[in-house]
Amino acid sequence: MALWSGRFDGTTEESACAFGASLPVDKRLFVQDIAGSRAHAAMLAAQGVISTEDAELIDQGLASILRDIESGSFDFELSDEDIHMAIERALTERIGDAGARLHTGRSRNDQVATDTRLYTKARLKALMDANLALRESLLHKAKQHSSAILPGYTHLQHAQPVLFSHHLLAYYWMLSRDFKRLMSAFECADASPLGAAALAGTSYPLDRSASAEALGFSQVIPNSLDAVSDRDFVADSIYAASLSMVHLSRLCEEIILWSTSEFGFITLSDSYSTGSSIMPQKKNPDFAELIRGKSGRVIGDLIGILTTLKGLPLAYNKDLQEDKEGLFDALDTLEESYRVMAGMVATLTVNENAMELQVKKGFMAATDIADYLAKKGLPFRRAHEIVGALVLLCEQRGCDLEDLSLDDYKEACDLFDADIVDYLNPEALVKARKSFGGTAPDAVSEQLNLALNLQQSQKDQLTALN
Amino acid sequence: MALWSGRFDGTTEESACAFGASLPVDKRLFVQDIAGSRAHAAMLAAQGVISTEDAELIDQGLASILRDIESGSFDFELSDEDIHMAIERALTERIGDAGARLHTGRSRNDQVATDTRLYTKARLKALMDANLALRESLLHKAKQHSSAILPGYTHLQHAQPVLFSHHLLAYYWMLSRDFKRLMSAFECADASPLGAAALAGTSYPLDRSASAEALGFSQVIPNSLDAVSDRDFVADSIYAASLSMVHLSRLCEEIILWSTSEFGFITLSDSYSTGSSIMPQKKNPDFAELIRGKSGRVIGDLIGILTTLKGLPLAYNKDLQEDKEGLFDALDTLEESYRVMAGMVATLTVNENAMELQVKKGFMAATDIADYLAKKGLPFRRAHEIVGALVLLCEQRGCDLEDLSLDDYKEACDLFDADIVDYLNPEALVKARKSFGGTAPDAVSEQLNLALNLQQSQKDQLTALN
Amino acid sequence: MALWSGRFDGTTEESACAFGASLPVDKRLFVQDIAGSRAHAAMLAAQGVISTEDAELIDQGLASILRDIESGSFDFELSDEDIHMAIERALTERIGDAGARLHTGRSRNDQVATDTRLYTKARLKALMDANLALRESLLHKAKQHSSAILPGYTHLQHAQPVLFSHHLLAYYWMLSRDFKRLMSAFECADASPLGAAALAGTSYPLDRSASAEALGFSQVIPNSLDAVSDRDFVADSIYAASLSMVHLSRLCEEIILWSTSEFGFITLSDSYSTGSSIMPQKKNPDFAELIRGKSGRVIGDLIGILTTLKGLPLAYNKDLQEDKEGLFDALDTLEESYRVMAGMVATLTVNENAMELQVKKGFMAATDIADYLAKKGLPFRRAHEIVGALVLLCEQRGCDLEDLSLDDYKEACDLFDADIVDYLNPEALVKARKSFGGTAPDAVSEQLNLALNLQQSQKDQLTALN
Amino acid sequence: MALWSGRFDGTTEESACAFGASLPVDKRLFVQDIAGSRAHAAMLAAQGVISTEDAELIDQGLASILRDIESGSFDFELSDEDIHMAIERALTERIGDAGARLHTGRSRNDQVATDTRLYTKARLKALMDANLALRESLLHKAKQHSSAILPGYTHLQHAQPVLFSHHLLAYYWMLSRDFKRLMSAFECADASPLGAAALAGTSYPLDRSASAEALGFSQVIPNSLDAVSDRDFVADSIYAASLSMVHLSRLCEEIILWSTSEFGFITLSDSYSTGSSIMPQKKNPDFAELIRGKSGRVIGDLIGILTTLKGLPLAYNKDLQEDKEGLFDALDTLEESYRVMAGMVATLTVNENAMELQVKKGFMAATDIADYLAKKGLPFRRAHEIVGALVLLCEQRGCDLEDLSLDDYKEACDLFDADIVDYLNPEALVKARKSFGGTAPDAVSEQLNLALNLQQSQKDQLTALN
Repeated sequence: MALWSGRFDGTTEESACAFGASLPVDKRLFVQDIAGSRAHAAMLAAQGVISTEDAELIDQGLASILRDIESGSFDFELSDEDIHMAIERALTERIGDAGARLHTGRSRNDQVATDTRLYTKARLKALMDANLALRESLLHKAKQHSSAILPGYTHLQHAQPVLFSHHLLAYYWMLSRDFKRLMSAFECADASPLGAAALAGTSYPLDRSASAEALGFSQVIPNSLDAVSDRDFVADSIYAASLSMVHLSRLCEEIILWSTSEFGFITLSDSYSTGSSIMPQKKNPDFAELIRGKSGRVIGDLIGILTTLKGLPLAYNKDLQEDKEGLFDALDTLEESYRVMAGMVATLTVNENAMELQVKKGFMAATDIADYLAKKGLPFRRAHEIVGALVLLCEQRGCDLEDLSLDDYKEACDLFDADIVDYLNPEALVKARKSFGGTAPDAVSEQLNLALNLQQSQKDQLTALN
Repeated sequence: MALWSGRFDGTTEESACAFGASLPVDKRLFVQDIAGSRAHAAMLAAQGVISTEDAELIDQGLASILRDIESGSFDFELSDEDIHMAIERALTERIGDAGARLHTGRSRNDQVATDTRLYTKARLKALMDANLALRESLLHKAKQHSSAILPGYTHLQHAQPVLFSHHLLAYYWMLSRDFKRLMSAFECADASPLGAAALAGTSYPLDRSASAEALGFSQVIPNSLDAVSDRDFVADSIYAASLSMVHLSRLCEEIILWSTSEFGFITLSDSYSTGSSIMPQKKNPDFAELIRGKSGRVIGDLIGILTTLKGLPLAYNKDLQEDKEGLFDALDTLEESYRVMAGMVATLTVNENAMELQVKKGFMAATDIADYLAKKGLPFRRAHEIVGALVLLCEQRGCDLEDLSLDDYKEACDLFDADIVDYLNPEALVKARKSFGGTAPDAVSEQLNLALNLQQSQKDQLTALN
Repeated sequence: MALWSGRFDGTTEESACAFGASLPVDKRLFVQDIAGSRAHAAMLAAQGVISTEDAELIDQGLASILRDIESGSFDFELSDEDIHMAIERALTERIGDAGARLHTGRSRNDQVATDTRLYTKARLKALMDANLALRESLLHKAKQHSSAILPGYTHLQHAQPVLFSHHLLAYYWMLSRDFKRLMSAFECADASPLGAAALAGTSYPLDRSASAEALGFSQVIPNSLDAVSDRDFVADSIYAASLSMVHLSRLCEEIILWSTSEFGFITLSDSYSTGSSIMPQKKNPDFAELIRGKSGRVIGDLIGILTTLKGLPLAYNKDLQEDKEGLFDALDTLEESYRVMAGMVATLTVNENAMELQVKKGFMAATDIADYLAKKGLPFRRAHEIVGALVLLCEQRGCDLEDLSLDDYKEACDLFDADIVDYLNPEALVKARKSFGGTAPDAVSEQLNLALNLQQSQKDQLTALN
Repeated sequence: MALWSGRFDGTTEESACAFGASLPVDKRLFVQDIAGSRAHAAMLAAQGVISTEDAELIDQGLASILRDIESGSFDFELSDEDIHMAIERALTERIGDAGARLHTGRSRNDQVATDTRLYTKARLKALMDANLALRESLLHKAKQHSSAILPGYTHLQHAQPVLFSHHLLAYYWMLSRDFKRLMSAFECADASPLGAAALAGTSYPLDRSASAEALGFSQVIPNSLDAVSDRDFVADSIYAASLSMVHLSRLCEEIILWSTSEFGFITLSDSYSTGSSIMPQKKNPDFAELIRGKSGRVIGDLIGILTTLKGLPLAYNKDLQEDKEGLFDALDTLEESYRVMAGMVATLTVNENAMELQVKKGFMAATDIADYLAKKGLPFRRAHEIVGALVLLCEQRGCDLEDLSLDDYKEACDLFDADIVDYLNPEALVKARKSFGGTAPDAVSEQLNLALNLQQSQKDQLTALN
């Protein structure tokens, strides 16, 4: 019998019940649901709304239910619509009337919002931790190969040589911004709706600050309608996950490219590769592809919540029950992706020789040769044109810029001199880019220090949350 | 040990394995996977690629596995990466070497595409069936209340009175277009990839037409690369589901509105309503809200697959493994939504009195009064202006258009005469709109016949598929 | 002739050129492009990379171009691919070689990123301002109708009476969270890419901090690859706009509902309504519908940028050119929507009588009656059941809870007494909900003060940016 | 003065007007709007609703307006809310009262639906034409390089060698499915809403079939509410465009990969490449990147329309005005992308040598060697394992499978014999895959014929529409 049956003379159609039930999805909120109820009961007793004895019974009953669910011995029943009802039903079975008093001054509307916020906060902390671990992995790899040079690409064409460590650090910074977004989502979730009751507050003399504090919320939501209908923290969390998955998808794309026969810049560890059931020679970057593929699903989760929220009047509507599947999927996916990616990065082998081979191709000295002329006073646009013509000449001859003679250079422009040879070497090209944020070894060292500082300060921020 | 371990000297990281495993999701393809393998084996034998004895053993082995999975006695193992591997592993355990011959001239790439297509076809047929059942429910309700009139709305403002049956039929037509889209998705899925092998075809003398025919495919995909990498049928299916969910969301919105205290046009059956854990008086249109909310998730599924496919080179990439979660979610959601909606529509009570009450409000005769003047020769724009002023007069007096005197009318325009009274009655207003597709009872009867004919012809189409 | 033609011996196909041109879209960046170039030139001169004379010429040339574009007298040419090229071409025409030196140590890659960040920052400030203005409008309306009561809804069913001001304040808080998100997006945009050059930094002795400071950036991006390829600030901005549009769509939905004949809670000003070309009586809440409809498009813009970014390798790819249309559309739409909504709210008339009429319907005292019993010691669940039965009794009799006799109450439960009458009045029901965040007048006063404080502190935050 | 001002005593706020105006967007519907009005007027006259003289005046007036808009001499006014009003205003100015009679038995609701459907039909025809042209381009390129072999990839790893023509044909088939989807969208648009009036039909004796036929619609929408509120054809069109853009994004990804220094399989024509403003050597596949990037925006357009439609009650709501921007953007983008892609494919140079070089790498003979053993009776799984070990051996020795001695082979498995050498050559590997749809030259020839037949039959289908 449903807990709201007094007013009904028919019963809900069974198939509709199954359609409406959220237990298979929200079951995982049991820790938070029990914590929320214990805090609520303690507060009710402290305010004199229920007796201390009842509060004691409730607390013990809930503790026993927690143990049972954790140990797998709890019996969920078919009629349990959601995790809240399952626990309350069991509680009343175990401790009688006292259990029925737990719901005083509370509604499922503020209860589910409280549970979901607590759960989200816990998961976001784990995500920030995994985010830092992946960044650690990137920093470590960058340091390991501090002098390796690979072609820097724009439009996937060779552009200018860059340090491999510089390249990896670009992902470090993307992920550090994701940390901030996860933290913002955490802050958005970190406000207590408990005590907003169904939608309008309650006439019981609740102490909302007390229950909020007991649950670790840093503030109390100041409007009861907003408290039960706000799902911004869900959207913020999925958005943070989406953009971070997009960042991972970019790194995956590169890992996949670098693992090809054509690039060959890295070799994935066997631990992070799979084979083919039909082609014996295959070694596939499956996990990078999976993460890239999953980025699509998490973006889909984001659309799901935004579209579901669109056009909903106040306050609680059942549509909001649809907030959890996408949220859980996004959080799960990002956390697993972070962990798999950290392992993949840590265990991959860098083939510096293969990189070196490619660094020599693609006329990557061209910009510096143009700069050479510009520094001698030629307007940059004119220098650009002259070097473009030299590249065309190389292509026609099937040679590289370093294969041209000084005469060739002089013929193109008489500002060229013997020192041009200093501009044709990848190491020299890299070393020259020492402007802040550039790829010169010194600049990258400085950058690495900034990254290490940020790493520590974000770690501290995370620790401070606990 | 993975089935592709020959070339590897390390083993896959366990957590990565779990990340890559699709068994929890693709388990439900077991019927199709076994059917596909039986057809493949039979064809291999007919072509002389494997022996008749082996084919026999394979067939019996697969039949026993099918029975075991269906009865729940099949043991999935932790190391089973996906349903294909689980079944093949069991087969080899049961029948030895013959089992290992099943995979001749086939790859997981064409196998998973075959399974997913077979599954999708089956589910789309069920969906078309459920679509017809819901439309039946709408037709039945429309016939039940053939003379009820409610306000027709534009901008949610009273516009012109319409028959309730006319209103319901609008949803009939939306859903009939969804049937077509489901059928198109079915046709897109109805082509066999089996025999494309990994990506390039095979050197075994396969008869792809034979296995296609055995599996009920109406054609064979003519390009092996396309065969293993095409997921258009997934996108088409989810798109059809998305748009149909959007249609349902519109009907849900109206059911929710109509169930309010303010509108009161319908009363949902207790079987399709729920109550509140805190507010004893509540009777909520939960299921309509849920369907509306779920429309967001299905749109999210659509984005998921499109974004996942974006930018993938040929042929198979592991990203494609992400095709199934969204597909299954969309198919499940739409089918349940159809069935719940059919029940909700069938069991709701129409409060014709409440509709009648509202039909009298909102000056809905205004257009016809303007038409009255226009028919007497006044340009419509001028007539519109005169009637607008009459409405403003009513608002100031707090009365209705039928409460104005003939003098009031004449003062506004001397073309008004006593027969204006015939234009002020909702029944008359409805009856007058007898242009094809209009809301006059005769026009709606004609429309209903068209709907019944379409109903029959689409039923026949569906039956012809079986 | 394109600025990169040296290396080419063919010319770009004209239709392809048009396809690739972004001028019609990025034209609006001219203010930022010129500001960026002036800051770059000044820095180049300060660093001795170009002469002071050249810097002076460049500055004057750019100033004259700015004047010409602003006055509409600037001639864009068909061959101007984008705003950067248009301005540089004109500059070189006007000042000769000095103009060609402007591009020293800079690339279109860092230039376009700089321009877009500057533009986004400016627009986000305007958006925060418009956000505050709309919230001001809500606060004002809330104070104007501080005692009006309307039904509070869950599932769009009457739940418990709430103050209209409490209801409006719920939107205040949603929008105040949007302010934070806009601020976060601002902070994300507030870092200078200038000097990252094409992708790897440059060999010129640039002072990136100097140009950043001149342009008002609070930091310098520490990785050149990230600097040219990061579009997080675009995604953050569109996300903030999306969620805020979703919030507006919720308010729009209520405005549309409240404007119906059935609800009648508000009357929109004629200034924010439109009529129908055919139905003279119509007065439509067009603008609320438009904003609700546009929320879909802004969500689409969000998907656009996320999907475009997915899977892109480093560093700059032409795909990134697609960042602007969605960004501009989202910023424009949100700003206009804020302004229109502020006017709509400010000018609407509240029909307190119509609200009062509905407040009496729907048995909204039921929860409090159950609480009455619970406070007398009955477990809440049991009290809920009893009141549910009373509601059913009322429905059967066609009466309200206040129409039942004390005997009726006593028959249902002997804990009822004469004081039950104090629980049946809407004002009393509202007044009782005085827990923090509840709808009681005192609680709402307290909430209003919190809102006013926040309003001031966010205003100060915004001012501090300038 | 607005055309609906009679009932209003205030005027619309100017900024709100601008917000609501759709003229800048829907201006491009002028051809269809005028055609629709002419057909409507002719029908009204034929039915005796307006006089033949009036009809004549209307027709001439509209013809003159058409000429003026086409020649650019038509004056749009600031107060013209949309294209419909602009034209009607001008008509009334030009021909007086007769112009005001045009709107008899019609509303903007059915008018805008009619215009948008006519426009969509015309654009979809052009798109199908462009689709065929691009496929033509692919077929031509495939025939040009009928014997070129490139590595076939799965997971972007070398898998098995395939014909370049086979690879291109995979895209042919994708695009041929897009043709079908465009045709389905066309059929969905091909039904006349004209005469549905505001929402309920009309009391004028309209002949809806006559106006439908005059406008080239193949059917009449049988429900007036559906007629004015249905935007399925918009969603279908944008969906077809989205999926086709996704297909193009896949081809773009390959073109970008193939153009890299590392792959080098193709060289884009200078006509379809661009350079860099800073790096003189660059030749970028900008257009392929742009198309890939734009696929994100078109997917965004799809989300826009679906989200906008979600939850809208019947019949017309202003939200629907938001249907056009996304539709126009999607149609424009796809058509331009088709045309640019056709040119890019037609003009690219295939570097068969570079392909050949890569074909030799990656142990692509492995599957066939396993098949060799399987054909000799070894279970495939066992054969797979043996060859896997041989690949590992090669990797350790740094050699290819063809570099192993017969003894090496025999040591791995004594079923190997001298004829194994026939399985190690790319041409042989390709030639062997002659199953239907495989990559063997004969199979590809057969496939090409199927493609040519389809090409012709879809061309015929398209012609039949005109």
